[in-house]
Amino acid sequence: MEIEAREISGPLENRFIKTRKQSLLLCESLEVEDFVVQPLPEVSPPKWHLAHTTWFLEELLLNKFQPPYKFHNESYRKLFNSYYKTLGEHWPQSNRGQLSRPTVLEIYKYRQTVEDEIINLAVLNRWNNEFHDMFELAVNHEEQHQELLLMDIKVILGSNPQLPAYKQKLRPTVQSGKPEWKFFEEGVYQIGTSEKNSFHFDNESPRHKVYLQSFHICNKLITNGEYLNFINDGGYRNALLWKSIGHDWIRSNNIKKPYYWNKDLSAPAEYTLYGENDLDLNAPVSHISYFEADAFARWMGMRLPTEQEFEVASESMPLVQREFIFHPSDCGAFNSQLWVWTQSQYSPYPGYRAYAGELNEYNGKFMCNQFVLKGGCIATPKRHYKRTYRNFFEPQQRWMFSGICLAKDDL
Amino acid sequence: MEIEAREISGPLENRFIKTRKQSLLLCESLEVEDFVVQPLPEVSPPKWHLAHTTWFLEELLLNKFQPPYKFHNESYRKLFNSYYKTLGEHWPQSNRGQLSRPTVLEIYKYRQTVEDEIINLAVLNRWNNEFHDMFELAVNHEEQHQELLLMDIKVILGSNPQLPAYKQKLRPTVQSGKPEWKFFEEGVYQIGTSEKNSFHFDNESPRHKVYLQSFHICNKLITNGEYLNFINDGGYRNALLWKSIGHDWIRSNNIKKPYYWNKDLSAPAEYTLYGENDLDLNAPVSHISYFEADAFARWMGMRLPTEQEFEVASESMPLVQREFIFHPSDCGAFNSQLWVWTQSQYSPYPGYRAYAGELNEYNGKFMCNQFVLKGGCIATPKRHYKRTYRNFFEPQQRWMFSGICLAKDDL
Amino acid sequence: MEIEAREISGPLENRFIKTRKQSLLLCESLEVEDFVVQPLPEVSPPKWHLAHTTWFLEELLLNKFQPPYKFHNESYRKLFNSYYKTLGEHWPQSNRGQLSRPTVLEIYKYRQTVEDEIINLAVLNRWNNEFHDMFELAVNHEEQHQELLLMDIKVILGSNPQLPAYKQKLRPTVQSGKPEWKFFEEGVYQIGTSEKNSFHFDNESPRHKVYLQSFHICNKLITNGEYLNFINDGGYRNALLWKSIGHDWIRSNNIKKPYYWNKDLSAPAEYTLYGENDLDLNAPVSHISYFEADAFARWMGMRLPTEQEFEVASESMPLVQREFIFHPSDCGAFNSQLWVWTQSQYSPYPGYRAYAGELNEYNGKFMCNQFVLKGGCIATPKRHYKRTYRNFFEPQQRWMFSGICLAKDDL
Amino acid sequence: MEIEAREISGPLENRFIKTRKQSLLLCESLEVEDFVVQPLPEVSPPKWHLAHTTWFLEELLLNKFQPPYKFHNESYRKLFNSYYKTLGEHWPQSNRGQLSRPTVLEIYKYRQTVEDEIINLAVLNRWNNEFHDMFELAVNHEEQHQELLLMDIKVILGSNPQLPAYKQKLRPTVQSGKPEWKFFEEGVYQIGTSEKNSFHFDNESPRHKVYLQSFHICNKLITNGEYLNFINDGGYRNALLWKSIGHDWIRSNNIKKPYYWNKDLSAPAEYTLYGENDLDLNAPVSHISYFEADAFARWMGMRLPTEQEFEVASESMPLVQREFIFHPSDCGAFNSQLWVWTQSQYSPYPGYRAYAGELNEYNGKFMCNQFVLKGGCIATPKRHYKRTYRNFFEPQQRWMFSGICLAKDDL
Repeated sequence: MEIEAREISGPLENRFIKTRKQSLLLCESLEVEDFVVQPLPEVSPPKWHLAHTTWFLEELLLNKFQPPYKFHNESYRKLFNSYYKTLGEHWPQSNRGQLSRPTVLEIYKYRQTVEDEIINLAVLNRWNNEFHDMFELAVNHEEQHQELLLMDIKVILGSNPQLPAYKQKLRPTVQSGKPEWKFFEEGVYQIGTSEKNSFHFDNESPRHKVYLQSFHICNKLITNGEYLNFINDGGYRNALLWKSIGHDWIRSNNIKKPYYWNKDLSAPAEYTLYGENDLDLNAPVSHISYFEADAFARWMGMRLPTEQEFEVASESMPLVQREFIFHPSDCGAFNSQLWVWTQSQYSPYPGYRAYAGELNEYNGKFMCNQFVLKGGCIATPKRHYKRTYRNFFEPQQRWMFSGICLAKDDL
Repeated sequence: MEIEAREISGPLENRFIKTRKQSLLLCESLEVEDFVVQPLPEVSPPKWHLAHTTWFLEELLLNKFQPPYKFHNESYRKLFNSYYKTLGEHWPQSNRGQLSRPTVLEIYKYRQTVEDEIINLAVLNRWNNEFHDMFELAVNHEEQHQELLLMDIKVILGSNPQLPAYKQKLRPTVQSGKPEWKFFEEGVYQIGTSEKNSFHFDNESPRHKVYLQSFHICNKLITNGEYLNFINDGGYRNALLWKSIGHDWIRSNNIKKPYYWNKDLSAPAEYTLYGENDLDLNAPVSHISYFEADAFARWMGMRLPTEQEFEVASESMPLVQREFIFHPSDCGAFNSQLWVWTQSQYSPYPGYRAYAGELNEYNGKFMCNQFVLKGGCIATPKRHYKRTYRNFFEPQQRWMFSGICLAKDDL
Repeated sequence: MEIEAREISGPLENRFIKTRKQSLLLCESLEVEDFVVQPLPEVSPPKWHLAHTTWFLEELLLNKFQPPYKFHNESYRKLFNSYYKTLGEHWPQSNRGQLSRPTVLEIYKYRQTVEDEIINLAVLNRWNNEFHDMFELAVNHEEQHQELLLMDIKVILGSNPQLPAYKQKLRPTVQSGKPEWKFFEEGVYQIGTSEKNSFHFDNESPRHKVYLQSFHICNKLITNGEYLNFINDGGYRNALLWKSIGHDWIRSNNIKKPYYWNKDLSAPAEYTLYGENDLDLNAPVSHISYFEADAFARWMGMRLPTEQEFEVASESMPLVQREFIFHPSDCGAFNSQLWVWTQSQYSPYPGYRAYAGELNEYNGKFMCNQFVLKGGCIATPKRHYKRTYRNFFEPQQRWMFSGICLAKDDL
Repeated sequence: MEIEAREISGPLENRFIKTRKQSLLLCESLEVEDFVVQPLPEVSPPKWHLAHTTWFLEELLLNKFQPPYKFHNESYRKLFNSYYKTLGEHWPQSNRGQLSRPTVLEIYKYRQTVEDEIINLAVLNRWNNEFHDMFELAVNHEEQHQELLLMDIKVILGSNPQLPAYKQKLRPTVQSGKPEWKFFEEGVYQIGTSEKNSFHFDNESPRHKVYLQSFHICNKLITNGEYLNFINDGGYRNALLWKSIGHDWIRSNNIKKPYYWNKDLSAPAEYTLYGENDLDLNAPVSHISYFEADAFARWMGMRLPTEQEFEVASESMPLVQREFIFHPSDCGAFNSQLWVWTQSQYSPYPGYRAYAGELNEYNGKFMCNQFVLKGGCIATPKRHYKRTYRNFFEPQQRWMFSGICLAKDDL
């Protein structure tokens, strides 16, 4: 892949600085104690995110482009390595909440020290393409962790019986306009990204042709009210609606409702980042597993879209984030307050090449027993709202901001 | 779907009778005790297979086409229901080996009684298309269980430290001819089955177009010798070769070699249905998990084929079962002594419709966290060797006769 | 310990032969399939008992007193070793039901061959005290396994939804006479056995003094009717009646009634070795865990006896087996149809010495987290009905023939 | 039990105030983050201890003696209830580390508010015996939690790979004088407490007679050096030294050394509350499970004392805490830097009566599958050093300050 030499524009440095500040801003309203706990094995303590994104800078920029590099603290190399086997041992993911040290303050200092070094390094490498690419990836990596931070903070506060609020604004709201079904003819379409000089993750490429059968897809998310109908109609009790292992999962975990709903369905309420609120029946249903989304679609006599269908459809129905005021012109756009589950299991694109070197483990090794989600959500940094972006989670996971978008065959 | 009225030809009745006899023939050399045990949760005792395929006849033919039907034994309805929630409760799969009763003799009598009733019923329904379709499915269902019987018998005998032999002939042998790589141009291909009057399972249809990128695929299976090289090169120790959950699986289960190999790799031997034999380095490596097949392919710098690639390729390289003598003309054919793992996670085809009624649960509910295998194996009944057949297992499972076929991109 | 030389009297050889026959007699009404399965990890398949008691003869008599000894089958040394680490590896206890081979027939032949050798060996060692002691232990060991055989057969048949019957007679019956409370003054008592020339297990000795506070003890077992009152009074729902880990156990296993009772308490029935029968409210409640016995006693405002109290009391209230017709003179005797739980955790007696040599592991290593049961039950061979016998099980176990005997302080 | 009316002397109020201060003092050197985490299910976060001991005051003093009482925060009733079923639901013990809120600061305020109310209440109840008894128990309860605080802080800091230090002084040190074996004649002894007006827990009474066989007991604890000899002699590999479930435990958890020792036995070091230090071979070995203590004793050809033996012996060899300088006159005293395991499973004393009312669950329900420890340790508040005190833990637990004291029979 030939790439022209590019100046590391001020813009990338600026974006780096803004991104780093944004991560701290997200934690501004937390108590020290909130930074430490891990209520679920897949949740990470906020201080871990702040440290891990800094560890990434040390391992992949400072250690590589400024050798011999003396690490800030040798023990951090293990503690804040997420899962990169080529970068040595890592502390078990499910035990991140067992660590009281380093303290939040020490991690803030760690961030500051490493940031200063990075700024210096960036100046020296202004014309180094390899550095530029890794630097850009590091910024994108931290943005990915900002969404995880919000997901994890929601679990930390929302699994506490006191149900403390985080801060305002972050909640899916009623969708403007009526649902519209859009029809797509069968034929050959293009999927994935190929733009040489624009950033993308390895799993989004290469751009390639696919043949799609004709299909219909809806531009609005399923609402809480619609989902409540599914529950009241016995959706969780009807085995025929469920994948076999999904049915085992709801049985053995006694699942009867979305993750953040309260127990009393006669007075339904939902924990949001505002705190607990009455359930807004017209707002999109969120924190839904693949198993639930798939069962709901079957109950409706429809199905989930494939990732290819959603990507094709989002060319003519662009992704719209909730924070924009909805204009009449948004009517034909996808409501993108929540990631939507696709029926596509996460697999490599034809011709997929994983990153070389240390980042080889970034995406490819997770391409097994996960499903692709498309679109974006209220917690997604703006630049990550891309048609070609591939998010992925296990079919029973629910702590991300996930919702339901329906498709159907052309009969 | 309009289907012409067909006479239940003598051939189908004959095939039924032969199939039923064949199931007993497969058990002929077993001791009574071998019919009862269940060394792994996914293995079923042979007597359970013999009873379950009979239960299928009672529930889906006798009870449906000859009401009011008095079941042979009410308790069998629960004991030998595999997983059909619409047909009532079922005994837990992992507890099948806890049942000493009914005895093997009682199950043989059960088979005979039900078979006689089916023969009578078939005569009466000679012109009933609905009956014909279900009858044909029931025969195919029993054939599927014949392969499971051989898989399960192999575990039952092979996990016993005495390593008793089953009987001769069933073992992959050296492949004739040299491996050939065949190239396929990119373009639109057709996948799946559509033949209206020929039997197929619901998951094989509808026939539909796919766009494939150009690819190369090899017509020979990977050998024990090649796999031994992978082991000796540290394949099981190199985390970068493995899917993340595959690596967790080999670590926590201390996996270091294929399922039936002995421990001592300096004098490698393999349990076969013949008993334990020296490892034939030139024979295909078998009883391989998806995780191992995928890691091996990565070690080779190649990849597994997709299910679409394999199906397309098998048009010009037909599937050849081992029991045929290999002629020079077989050279361009797929060696089909073992099912081959594809990189395709098991999903519904576009426009997929699950069987209606009681059989709705036959296939669709398993389309999650499984991978497709194509081809066939030495234990597969001949009629099931079809380009469009979709077999599926979990990525860590190894008790089926599975092997490795490689593909690569056109660079 | 000095012991006089004794002739291995014909009586011991005769007892050996009778005991061996009795083990087979217990299995006479079983189907081959019943010999093989293992519905619970702590249950052993009947064929395993038959083989293990033979393995014991090979390892501890033939191999020791007739060297160099060629074992019947080398693989049996591992397969039928229960847990003796000094005698090499052993097959995991919870996997005994995974073994179809050796067959039942092979094990019957194994028994016959080894028995013949033992008879010959016994003749040669008629004046060998060491042999005599081991021989006597081996006979007692097989008798212990006869009770286990009955316990295990009951689980095998009773956990099968067909609830097949075993054979008649083995069921606790209504106790003759009224319950009598007997009072014992505080003071120094003697516990354990010391008779030099009479057989006992290592855990029963040495005889030693204990100081007991005054107490009352009842000579009749708690009945099904009394236990049903406990249930109907909410006994399983009242946390205050239960040991902490006992309460966790009933909660996580959803325990609400004795092991073999049916679900419908409005028409209570009980699986017995006769098959399922209506619950006899006047017969003793059986298959009770320590946790349940202890909770019941607390509900009554009483307590379980200590093992010392029971042993002291059984001097003036002898143990009476159910098979004897109860005469008026039995009124002051202990009803011994069921083992009774004591509140004593299983510990070594002061001055306890475990067997030397290979049998060191026979008893001592289990003296942790088990409770002592005293008396005997309808499945206990007659010679094992001894005041000093110490039976022991884990507090949640219920597959033995266990019941409830109450004691109370003198207030 | 008749008790004279007593004035709640200033001394008890003073002791309350001192005790409350002492709990905070113990936490003085902690970071906020250290108050929150729970590295093991049996460890509680320090902030939980601070809150729970305050909850105890609310539930058992304020709510009872000052009705109608408005609780500080309704949610605390569940969050800080440890296990008292009669006092409502409780948050699961193993999930205490999932709670970031209430914050440490909120808990400090909670403590202060409740303390003030208690002081007022105590003045009003100066002549109320019932109040006095409960108040005294509450103080003792908090003292018990002070030792738990130190145990838990050690795990929190010691399981962090940074191995931060807590503060000085708390470490077992070399024992003065040579080990002395003391002999006790067989006979009747008195055990337990009966002093009517002196505080004791319900499990320490009633005072009662026991008959002991003659025995020898040693007044010094086993040292690190002696324990290292056991390891080097293969102690962890010799199955014959271990209880059966203890051997399973070391195998499945790969236990090869005491809890806080480092991995490298060629340069042995130990985490202490000072931080990691070279192992002092002459200091007592600590953080030992019952299984290890029992195996060590067997390796020495000796045994652990019973709780009765230790209690009898401590009449003539008084308990001496490490913080006192050892005078020559201490030579005949028990070294009590560490709790010592006894071979006695934790059972009720004859005539035991659990507390009435809400505190019924304080001790009795744990009398199953635990072993008694006697003496005291460097973390034990001084008043709890009593001959009659009964500490108890599960046989595999190691996070308490436990050591080994040996006894032997008189042969």
